[in-house]
Amino acid sequence: MSSKAPIGVFDSGVGGLTVVKEIMRQIPGESIIYFGDTARLPYGSKSKETIITYTRQIVRFLMGKNVKAIVIACNTASAFALETVKAELDIPVIGVVKPGAKAAAESTKNGRIGVIGTEGTIRSGIYNEFLSETNPQVQVFGKACPLFVPLVEEGLIDDPITMEMIRRYTSELIEKDIDTLVLGCTHYPLLRKTIRKIVGDKIELVNPAYETAITLKEVLTEAGLENDDNLKTDHKFYVSDGAEKFKYFANSILPCEVVETKDVNIENY
Amino acid sequence: MSSKAPIGVFDSGVGGLTVVKEIMRQIPGESIIYFGDTARLPYGSKSKETIITYTRQIVRFLMGKNVKAIVIACNTASAFALETVKAELDIPVIGVVKPGAKAAAESTKNGRIGVIGTEGTIRSGIYNEFLSETNPQVQVFGKACPLFVPLVEEGLIDDPITMEMIRRYTSELIEKDIDTLVLGCTHYPLLRKTIRKIVGDKIELVNPAYETAITLKEVLTEAGLENDDNLKTDHKFYVSDGAEKFKYFANSILPCEVVETKDVNIENY
Repeated sequence: MSSKAPIGVFDSGVGGLTVVKEIMRQIPGESIIYFGDTARLPYGSKSKETIITYTRQIVRFLMGKNVKAIVIACNTASAFALETVKAELDIPVIGVVKPGAKAAAESTKNGRIGVIGTEGTIRSGIYNEFLSETNPQVQVFGKACPLFVPLVEEGLIDDPITMEMIRRYTSELIEKDIDTLVLGCTHYPLLRKTIRKIVGDKIELVNPAYETAITLKEVLTEAGLENDDNLKTDHKFYVSDGAEKFKYFANSILPCEVVETKDVNIENY
Repeated sequence: MSSKAPIGVFDSGVGGLTVVKEIMRQIPGESIIYFGDTARLPYGSKSKETIITYTRQIVRFLMGKNVKAIVIACNTASAFALETVKAELDIPVIGVVKPGAKAAAESTKNGRIGVIGTEGTIRSGIYNEFLSETNPQVQVFGKACPLFVPLVEEGLIDDPITMEMIRRYTSELIEKDIDTLVLGCTHYPLLRKTIRKIVGDKIELVNPAYETAITLKEVLTEAGLENDDNLKTDHKFYVSDGAEKFKYFANSILPCEVVETKDVNIENY
């Protein structure tokens, strides 16, 4: 495997771009092949079996592009499918949940951590699992927030309606006296400032995207696969539907210009 | 083809059950095979090509169940895929758009009609097309309401947040002095009472599900396929994901008890 090979990153849609942004910032020498499964989003309300099927198809697509490592930039897919595909591949595969849990465990002082995410992520209890492994003393309180993704996609970022929904979803976590809140869905960092307004300054907001990029860097270094030639990066973007709409969104999130996004019939993989 | 054969009805999820409810009420002798594409919903934000692919798979599944007619109980799929699959099949296929447009054209007095629906339905301009065919004098004003489906699925039916979104989405239609509003997405009849509170009594709300059941009855009678033996109806429900969750929702909408819902791997069709 050549260190010049790209890194495969995928999500159900645009949310994973918050992870791509961190990778570009922290390890700018790496080329990225991104796949957004826009035809089948959202993942958050789907079953484990379905998410594993979808993840395997995307992994086959990315392997066809000769990626040297894969980042599952979706909390739901990390929760449901990471262990399965990891066992099936001989390249490094990392998810966003473990790095996020690690950061939260390091951040908390009172041992009380809130996690917000999709129905699937919260129901899986995966943050709880990883946090308990890291520190059996912590108490974890999860809350599914199914309206956040549609609100972000409708562009209602700093809007009274979004604020009211943040208030409703987080009130029970605040009552539990959490001091750390994990943004357990890759869309949620886009609501970071609005969430901050509602929950106040005393709660630490953990963005797993940041820690995921650090973990990726460590994993690549360990495997001798790091590429620091950032003059030759070549990023490519693929989606299963709506390439133009995705490109527009990507250009509003990423530091580089996304010139082209291609449609892929992912069900054929 | 036997008149005892069932009718195939499909939607991206639970929304199409509002159409099933009307069919059960108006032609109670008919058995129904329902398919909800819950693994790939929502359809409203997806492209025409993707919706045609999905519709063809579902049609193949329903044809395998020997249905005598198919109802596309989804406005987006009716807009994008009805003509294509109709040309490919030799049984009657009806959508919800044409019956809805007909009812709206008959209802309006001032010739100013509003249509609310998903991004896909509104962008397609299909209501405009059918309404102009029926009556070239009418003026049609469309408005996409992408948050209505997630709000319904979150159970926020009669909630201040939903009311505020209805207010925002409908204000420009009310300014256009419409006297008729088409609920152009099968989820929206579930918000009917809340929409009524916001838009007032002077605007007629058109639910295409009602007219679709009437059209279906006419089409079956014409083809000699009507079944009025309502002692022997046998309804079956299938989804591509989350059968238990679907069953719960179905039982809250339908007049009959839904005892079982089965999972289908629709990508294999």
